Parts: sequence; C-alpha cells; structure tokens
Amino acid sequence: MTANPPPASPVPAATRVVCEQLAPTIADLAGNQRLVLETVERNIADGADIIVLPELVTSGYVFDSADEARSLAMRRDDGFFDQVSGLLVGTSSVVVFGFCEQSDGPQLFNSAAVMTAEGLVEVYRKVHLWDRETLVFTPGSARPPVVDTPHGKVGVMVCYDLEFPEMPRALALRGADLIAVPTNWPLTDVPAGERAPEIIHAQASARANGVFIACCDRSGIERGQQWTEGTVIVDQFGWPIDRVTGTGRATADVFLGLARDKSISPHNDLLADRRSDVYGTEGSR
Amino acid sequence: MTANPPPASPVPAATRVVCEQLAPTIADLAGNQRLVLETVERNIADGADIIVLPELVTSGYVFDSADEARSLAMRRDDGFFDQVSGLLVGTSSVVVFGFCEQSDGPQLFNSAAVMTAEGLVEVYRKVHLWDRETLVFTPGSARPPVVDTPHGKVGVMVCYDLEFPEMPRALALRGADLIAVPTNWPLTDVPAGERAPEIIHAQASARANGVFIACCDRSGIERGQQWTEGTVIVDQFGWPIDRVTGTGRATADVFLGLARDKSISPHNDLLADRRSDVYGTEGSR
Repeated sequence: MTANPPPASPVPAATRVVCEQLAPTIADLAGNQRLVLETVERNIADGADIIVLPELVTSGYVFDSADEARSLAMRRDDGFFDQVSGLLVGTSSVVVFGFCEQSDGPQLFNSAAVMTAEGLVEVYRKVHLWDRETLVFTPGSARPPVVDTPHGKVGVMVCYDLEFPEMPRALALRGADLIAVPTNWPLTDVPAGERAPEIIHAQASARANGVFIACCDRSGIERGQQWTEGTVIVDQFGWPIDRVTGTGRATADVFLGLARDKSISPHNDLLADRRSDVYGTEGSR
Repeated sequence: MTANPPPASPVPAATRVVCEQLAPTIADLAGNQRLVLETVERNIADGADIIVLPELVTSGYVFDSADEARSLAMRRDDGFFDQVSGLLVGTSSVVVFGFCEQSDGPQLFNSAAVMTAEGLVEVYRKVHLWDRETLVFTPGSARPPVVDTPHGKVGVMVCYDLEFPEMPRALALRGADLIAVPTNWPLTDVPAGERAPEIIHAQASARANGVFIACCDRSGIERGQQWTEGTVIVDQFGWPIDRVTGTGRATADVFLGLARDKSISPHNDLLADRRSDVYGTEGSR
C-alpha cells in the first residue's frame, strides 16, 4: 500500500518497508535460521528496502530455562550473520531482527541485529525486559541505536521498550525517521471494539514524534502462548498503513523524508515545542 | 458506567468523575459563567466528586484579537471563583475548568482552575500553546500541579499538553491518580475507522502511566471552528470508560486507588521499570 504522497520536488524514491510476521519454532535454531534466510531472500527479491522480523526470531521466546536460552544463543561473530549480509550484497537494504545474544561473558541479552551488505552494523540489547525475560536476560545498558542508511535514519527498540514513551522520543530527538520494533506481543484480552494496546502505543508514539514505526510481531502458538499477531506499520501521523493477521507480511511504500518535517501548525513543531525545563521527569530510574 | 471492581478489602467508595462537554459562547463572559455555575450545581446534585469542564470555558476559544481575549479574562481574585466554591461547600468535590487568566502584568495565560469548597486551590498555566494561542497567551513556566484531594491525587494539564508524553509521565511520577484535561480539540480528518488522535494519546498515556485520564472537550461551532467533541474518560489500562458526542456528559464511577498499583506482571512495574540512565531525552528544549 502507498501511504504518503511524495514531496513536490525533487521526487525521491519511496522506501519499501516490510514486516514479516513469522512463526519461529522454539529450540530449533537451525530451522529458524533457515526461515530467516528464506524470508530475507524472498523479500529482497520483491524489492524490500527495510525488512523487520520478530523479536528472538532465531531462538523462539518461551524458554523452559536459562540453559535452554543459552543453547539457542548466538555470538556476534556467528557465521549466520555473514549468511544474512551475503543476501544483501549489491543492495542498500537493511534487515532488523531479534536474536538471543551470547555475550563474551556469561550474560545473555535479548538483542536486535541491524544488518546491511556490510555485515552486522549495530546490535541493540533490549533495555526494558518483560516478565520472565528478567530470569534469563541481562537488561541492556546502552541507548538504542539510530542507524544512518541510504533510506533514512532507522532507530531500533524491542517490544516492551515501546511502552516507555521516552524510548521513541529519544530516537526521534536523535533523528530517527523510522523506528523498527521487533516484538513478541503475548495475546491479551481487549474490550470489544478496541485494538491491541501495543498498537495504540505505536500510534501515539509515531504521532507524538512525527516518525514512522514498523512493529513486527510473531505468529504461531508456542508452548501454549498465543500472540497478538499485531504486526503494523504506522505513518508519521500515527495512522496504520498496513497490518497483518496470522502469518504474512505488512508492506508500506513510504517517503521517510516526511519524518524530517516536525511542523504541525504555522506555530508548532513537535520537538521544538518540548519544554524540558518544566517536565522534571529525569532522575528517578 | 462502573469501570473497575473494587479491591477486596477495605472497600473504598467509588469516585464519580464527570466531564461535561459544554458549548460556551465566544465573547459572552457573563453567559459562560452562568453556564459553568449551572453545570457545577447540577452535577454536584447528581453526586459528582470530580467535575472537569472544557478549556477556556468562560471565554470561548476563537478570539478575533488579543484585546478581545483580554476583555474576557479573569484575575484570580475574580468573584466568580467564590461563586463556584460556594456551590461546593459541604462537599469534598473538585472542579477543574479552563479560563482566560489576566495576570498581574499584561500577560494573558490559558489557565486551568482547580476548585474546592476552600476556593481556588491551584491554577495551572498551559505550557504548550497550540497554533494561534501563541499570538494571545504567554506560555506557562511552572510544572503542572498534582492536587491532593479526598478522592485521590488529581493532576492537571490542558489540551495540547497531552500530546507531549513527558507531561502525563511527570504527573504520574509525582503521584497523580487521575489527570484532568480541559480541552478544545479542533476537528480534524481521521482515516475511516479511526478515532480522534487526541483520544489515542489519552489511551496510550493512561496505559503507560497506570493513571485515569479525564479529557473534557467542548461542543458547538465557534466562528466556523468545529470541535472533535471527543470527551472521554479513560481507565488506568488505557480503555475508554465513557465517551460523549455532541453536548452531554461522560460519567465514570472509578476506584482511583487502583492507579497506585503500577505492577503489570510479577516482574514489572510501569514506573520502576523506567531507565532514565539510558534515555538522554532532557537537555534540548
């Protein structure tokens, strides 16, 4: 679907953003790696510029123990990353996906890889861990990355991070045009007529910051856990461009440069209007 | 409508929150004051504990000049405030409404009054001014208030403030259980099937902070300006409890103490999970 009209002149090429709502298999590292490679290869052939895949897509999510998670972890020098970047040679495409990261020490991190033809250009370690993730992973301590790509600046966070409005704000202040969010959203009850609350967070954050947000959820039932299957690409005004239910992909051809314009009235600018002198929200962790 | 089950024990009384979507008349200060008095009196008789009325309800919004706004302004010692508090004598009720404030100097502020039987207990001067408001008003420079009431802690902001996630966050960190938001939401186009974006902001902010939010919009067409008529009371999970279209009121009987529980999983707390060490969002105004 095409979301936004191009600016008048010069006319840049649209960026094709794809989120593929895969169903990885818990504890099948090799099988999930093949799934990722097949998915990247197919979407590159279809002209995707930015591909976002789910959180922990190479390992699965519902670990039965920290030892199981460790057995499904990858180091940053894992040959798998070379295989992914090999698929990107000759393109300017970017792939973002979640994986279970084995650090040089004993710690495991719930990480997101940002990959180009150059290789693994950035790894983000999830800062806000959800529920039993705290029993397996060490929380990240570095700020989320903003990666300068030929398509625009791509910020990255993972799942529960999105429920902290400070995170998209931080990425927007550092120039992100699009925020890629690998997720595994556990299914929750919502009132009749309402959509998943995580989508509401994505909409509000996109609108508050004038950025595109691409959330890639997963599908499949894993050890009894159902997922929201809420994959959504939201435009810089907060409106969903494309969504997907079940397996399949959301696609949006967007002009990411539109996220550089934060003006929302003749007298207002989303970021310049901030009043940090008043908020006083820093200081308490 | 009753939104939340009471906690097991002790059973506190529910708080009745009312937002009445009035249609003030531009430039009719005396008539609008009567409208406010009638509305407060009627809702007190109906058992309202917290009454929220629109932004600038005593003056109207679409001023033709700063001089016109000045002619519709009130100082804090205006006798009208005594009339409102007189209606609250013998109750523990709280009224929040917007007014055009004449300061001791030449400045006008887009302010919200917080009133009890004790009188004018707090005035908040809108920090984020929208569009042509910047031609009339001076932006406030003080943090938004959190007022301790017998019903719970009531935070206050006005309209466009809500589009800055830092504002509800600041109020929640200071203990607000409910945030009262007098608003005048100009009608904007939304895609088919979508609700007003300001409501999405209210939902996301309520959910991110575990607070109730009561937004009171206005109705009526003023000098050609239509309004969203989007009055909504949102629970601490971000779900609308009651809404109103046209004139009329939204009502919710809620247990504001539920906003004190920020736990959302055995391992997560909405506020304690914040990572101010990572965000780095302060510093740029």
